[in-house]
Amino acid sequence: MSSQDRKLYRRLVSVDEVISIIEKYFPLSPRGEEEVYIGEAVGRIASRDVYSTINFPPYTRSLVDGYAVLSGDLEGVYEDRPARLKLVGKVSTGETKVLSIKRGECIEVSTGAIIPYPADAVVPVEYTHSEGDEVVFYRSVAHGENIDIVGSDVVQGEVVLWKGETITPLTAAGLSAVGVDRVWVYRKIRVGIIPTGNEIRRVGEELKYGQIYDSNSHMVYSLVNFLGSEPKIYEPARDTFDEIKERVDQALAENDVVVTIGGTSAGLEDYVYKVFDTYEPGVIIHGVKEKPGRPLVVAVARDKLLLGLPGFPLSCLITSHLYLLPIVARLQGLKGYRYQVERAKLSQPLRGRPGIRVFVPTILVRRGETLAYPLDGHSGRIASLNMIDGFIIVREDEEYVPQGSSVDVLRYIFSKIYDINVIGSHCPLFQEILRKIFADTEARIVNVGSTSGLNALKSGIADIVGTHLLDPETMEYNIPVIKRMGLKDVVVLRGYIREQGFVYRKEIGEVKGMLDIMERKLRFVNRNPGSGTRVLIDYLIEEESRKKGYESEEVRKNIQGYSFEAKNHDTIAYLVSKGIADVGVAIKYVADKYGLAFTPIREERYDIVIRKDVLDRKDVNRLVQLFRGELKTFIKGFTGYEVDEETGKIIEL
Amino acid sequence: MSSQDRKLYRRLVSVDEVISIIEKYFPLSPRGEEEVYIGEAVGRIASRDVYSTINFPPYTRSLVDGYAVLSGDLEGVYEDRPARLKLVGKVSTGETKVLSIKRGECIEVSTGAIIPYPADAVVPVEYTHSEGDEVVFYRSVAHGENIDIVGSDVVQGEVVLWKGETITPLTAAGLSAVGVDRVWVYRKIRVGIIPTGNEIRRVGEELKYGQIYDSNSHMVYSLVNFLGSEPKIYEPARDTFDEIKERVDQALAENDVVVTIGGTSAGLEDYVYKVFDTYEPGVIIHGVKEKPGRPLVVAVARDKLLLGLPGFPLSCLITSHLYLLPIVARLQGLKGYRYQVERAKLSQPLRGRPGIRVFVPTILVRRGETLAYPLDGHSGRIASLNMIDGFIIVREDEEYVPQGSSVDVLRYIFSKIYDINVIGSHCPLFQEILRKIFADTEARIVNVGSTSGLNALKSGIADIVGTHLLDPETMEYNIPVIKRMGLKDVVVLRGYIREQGFVYRKEIGEVKGMLDIMERKLRFVNRNPGSGTRVLIDYLIEEESRKKGYESEEVRKNIQGYSFEAKNHDTIAYLVSKGIADVGVAIKYVADKYGLAFTPIREERYDIVIRKDVLDRKDVNRLVQLFRGELKTFIKGFTGYEVDEETGKIIEL
Repeated sequence: MSSQDRKLYRRLVSVDEVISIIEKYFPLSPRGEEEVYIGEAVGRIASRDVYSTINFPPYTRSLVDGYAVLSGDLEGVYEDRPARLKLVGKVSTGETKVLSIKRGECIEVSTGAIIPYPADAVVPVEYTHSEGDEVVFYRSVAHGENIDIVGSDVVQGEVVLWKGETITPLTAAGLSAVGVDRVWVYRKIRVGIIPTGNEIRRVGEELKYGQIYDSNSHMVYSLVNFLGSEPKIYEPARDTFDEIKERVDQALAENDVVVTIGGTSAGLEDYVYKVFDTYEPGVIIHGVKEKPGRPLVVAVARDKLLLGLPGFPLSCLITSHLYLLPIVARLQGLKGYRYQVERAKLSQPLRGRPGIRVFVPTILVRRGETLAYPLDGHSGRIASLNMIDGFIIVREDEEYVPQGSSVDVLRYIFSKIYDINVIGSHCPLFQEILRKIFADTEARIVNVGSTSGLNALKSGIADIVGTHLLDPETMEYNIPVIKRMGLKDVVVLRGYIREQGFVYRKEIGEVKGMLDIMERKLRFVNRNPGSGTRVLIDYLIEEESRKKGYESEEVRKNIQGYSFEAKNHDTIAYLVSKGIADVGVAIKYVADKYGLAFTPIREERYDIVIRKDVLDRKDVNRLVQLFRGELKTFIKGFTGYEVDEETGKIIEL
Repeated sequence: MSSQDRKLYRRLVSVDEVISIIEKYFPLSPRGEEEVYIGEAVGRIASRDVYSTINFPPYTRSLVDGYAVLSGDLEGVYEDRPARLKLVGKVSTGETKVLSIKRGECIEVSTGAIIPYPADAVVPVEYTHSEGDEVVFYRSVAHGENIDIVGSDVVQGEVVLWKGETITPLTAAGLSAVGVDRVWVYRKIRVGIIPTGNEIRRVGEELKYGQIYDSNSHMVYSLVNFLGSEPKIYEPARDTFDEIKERVDQALAENDVVVTIGGTSAGLEDYVYKVFDTYEPGVIIHGVKEKPGRPLVVAVARDKLLLGLPGFPLSCLITSHLYLLPIVARLQGLKGYRYQVERAKLSQPLRGRPGIRVFVPTILVRRGETLAYPLDGHSGRIASLNMIDGFIIVREDEEYVPQGSSVDVLRYIFSKIYDINVIGSHCPLFQEILRKIFADTEARIVNVGSTSGLNALKSGIADIVGTHLLDPETMEYNIPVIKRMGLKDVVVLRGYIREQGFVYRKEIGEVKGMLDIMERKLRFVNRNPGSGTRVLIDYLIEEESRKKGYESEEVRKNIQGYSFEAKNHDTIAYLVSKGIADVGVAIKYVADKYGLAFTPIREERYDIVIRKDVLDRKDVNRLVQLFRGELKTFIKGFTGYEVDEETGKIIEL
């Protein structure tokens, strides 16, 4: 099948057109109402005006414990010129009889008791002294003081909740005060969620190489569930017209909105569009001028709405924020729902795509101003989702956004500010150390690799970075690289040693070097350029070639899989254990973890780089102390790890 | 009982001490854990670290539809210098076999399909043309382009969710991607809520004069329910030691935290403190240096916490924000929970109370900067709760906070920004007009009376004010008052006429004037100073006294109830209908509403004052048009209302 045979997108629409196009075919208005208990109604939208049937306060009452008086009787009274009034009665809170007083009289009242007629003030008990049937007053009182007049707050017939308002705990208080504890609200919208794709397995099922767990459904479920609607996840549909059609038919019967995930990119096996077009009026949008999220499909099936969200997690997330959530909110009566936008300062330049609105995932960090640090990677990334605070919006007319620009960031609803950001290379030992040190701190711990971690430190995002980068010129770890990057105001906490070598399945037989791999035509798996291990591999090739008189360039071409890479020690071992490759270079720890043979090459050093201005923090101090003491025993559970005399030293640069 | 016999507060503690004192007796740590479905876990706190058991992505996959190649085979290729590779296979998404290629070969791959070994890039199908068993390529491809390397995102053994983190929809995505769809979270805290007070009736019960509906319970219920805990409201307890003790015993058996509301102010019938002190170790805090909220009581009963919240709604609300919510949050594992503080500019000066932290309820309005407009009234007010965006914090060391100061505002979690604020006098007709006009707008409609409404307009908070204020000098309505206030950039939309007169029960017999009321010793109910009706009443007294040769001062003294007031037309009629007074002055509409007799005095005019800069809004324009047309028919359902030739005119000032 050639590209010409494929279904082409119809006219792509702009991000801002999507909702208004939908509205032409499908009114985004509520779908009915229900009556619920006010205490459970927070966040929901009133579907009817509520009128008060009583006045509030429902009677004129005392705001203090004291004596109800006619304020005129106590004019000019103060501590050394007291006055006496005759005590003619007492009203406790909850009594329903209205007593009367005349000039020269007073009545004892509790907080909340009815004010006798026509008393106009209450003197707090602290300023009085009772003597038999008289009360001595030591201060005057202003007209109206300490009394709360019936209906001064709400009158009977006043609207106490307006249709369209969001119910909050204060609404609950206001309504119940006037005798209303159930309220009519727009009903919840039912959202059917259908994952599609041949590679999709449900959590709990066995995963083969080439398969992936359904994760988008759970994300969409929790997003719309948080918005108060009623989601339901259906069995994943394989990429066939019939299976998708059957699933969509079923979901349409049970829901107001049906969301499919995946299968929208007009690829080899994309049937979502075709299924959506079997309904009336069918597909109304196919493709949006945005990245990620371009392959959005929207269709209407009579009084139901169909949304085909793209299958990459970031695409699914951004299209959910831009379209699904506002749609669901409006169908539930929430008029003004919109994603939040915040201004931030861009920490590194970005390229735009003329005519396309680009959403770049970002971490936000507050150092005085808010910094936006764009996250690497494509829309298929999932772990990095956990560090996303939002998306930098690059407009259709921006080709280039310089570093330091003020940009709009679409805020992820759950983003929060962290005390400290630990961003760098993943290491099982360092992870356990972090667990211990930051158990009580709001620390964000993100694994992106050594180089990205140091870049994050340089741009002011990261506070602590774990790194193991080999400098090819000096064959030293970390410090030469950090110096070359020009990192300022940081120190290096000398870390530990990890044993590194060839990792391979036992049946391959001992691997003796890179030329051995080439000569035996073993299937190699390389590390990514920029990693310390890659520097080591290339160094080995140079050394071995020189000794044996080979051209190193030729050796690289002849090592099978030299261009096939993994990005960390762990997956080198994983690919070898799966038989996808025969051999790679990694640390001993992962060889043991995956049950592989190991031939040592040389040690690598894992160091911790710390911004100076967090060194005074208690937790960071504990971290340093741990490296100087406890680490020696801590490390024993980790094979291939060692401390040396350098460990725990602070090196100023 | 004199003041000396009462239980005195022990040492009052400061606002900031409360939580730390509680922690000494009652650790604010989670109370257990439970495993829940990740899609329903948003907002909850992980009670265990979650390690990934797989690498993610779980295989090296294609990010596009196209052809997997060795990038070295396509070096230097572009549109007019294409290259051909042999097509040796096809991998669809979901297939689990790993194919191989050699130099000069390619394999067709779908988005999400396994990358054959050792291919290192994919050329998107748009840049190719297939011809039998060959594919023509029109561009080169970079090493690594369009492929997603196994484990590049998460490695097996990496922590994907840290204990103590809040679950969000992205957590749901991240965990399910690595095969986890259930998660251990701290369990919900059970909160028992006991309203106390002899005057308290439950919603649905009949309300006598002197009784009030329980509203605080529903507010506290919805607050803690929103925080994810499990509240339960108990039967109100009357103010007796035995009944409160019985109810607290029952609630302690069923909950982690027990909240009583009311009965904490050391008044006549306050038994909460005594009941709390029967447990071990008993009361630990009794009284906080804050206003409102001073009479907070905290006690510990072994492993349960007792909180005695004050009974006035605002006191209950602020103490809930300051103490109850953080306590519940921390017991559910949320470490950093704190109320939100925002800076705002103070719209009018405030007095502090040395040594006391004062929380002043406020509306926030954004006009460029955020303005805080303190709300009048005491902590017993309830309807005004609906307009509270937070509390201005006046510190213990501030005696006076000048207008224009930058102040801290404790944000109510549900406050939102309104497009337009309608703040003024309540009128049943105007209310119906507003319902019609603002049905689709985010309008905040608040009834505070004419004077407060105009003050709100002056300080920049209100946009539209309904007013009926009589100027005693000119005996004209509204315009002289507005001019005297120096209101700028506003216009008056001339409103309608309301018939005003004596309102009384039929059996009283016709009321002929203020002297008639005095002479017949009728029990009068007056209006509040500042209201137009009060001006009218005092005018009548002056006129009638002058005609009959009385001293008006003496007349005022001799009218029974001259100092006993209500604050609006509605409650004048209500008090008369209840027999608490015999007669008052109000509009005909409320006389009819409460089935009372009516003797006309004179008409009053209800006008609408509008800020000029909202006149261009569509809804405001519709409002003006309504007054010029439709109002004539609209008004027919309202007895005692009329339009005249002035109605609908715009008057510039």
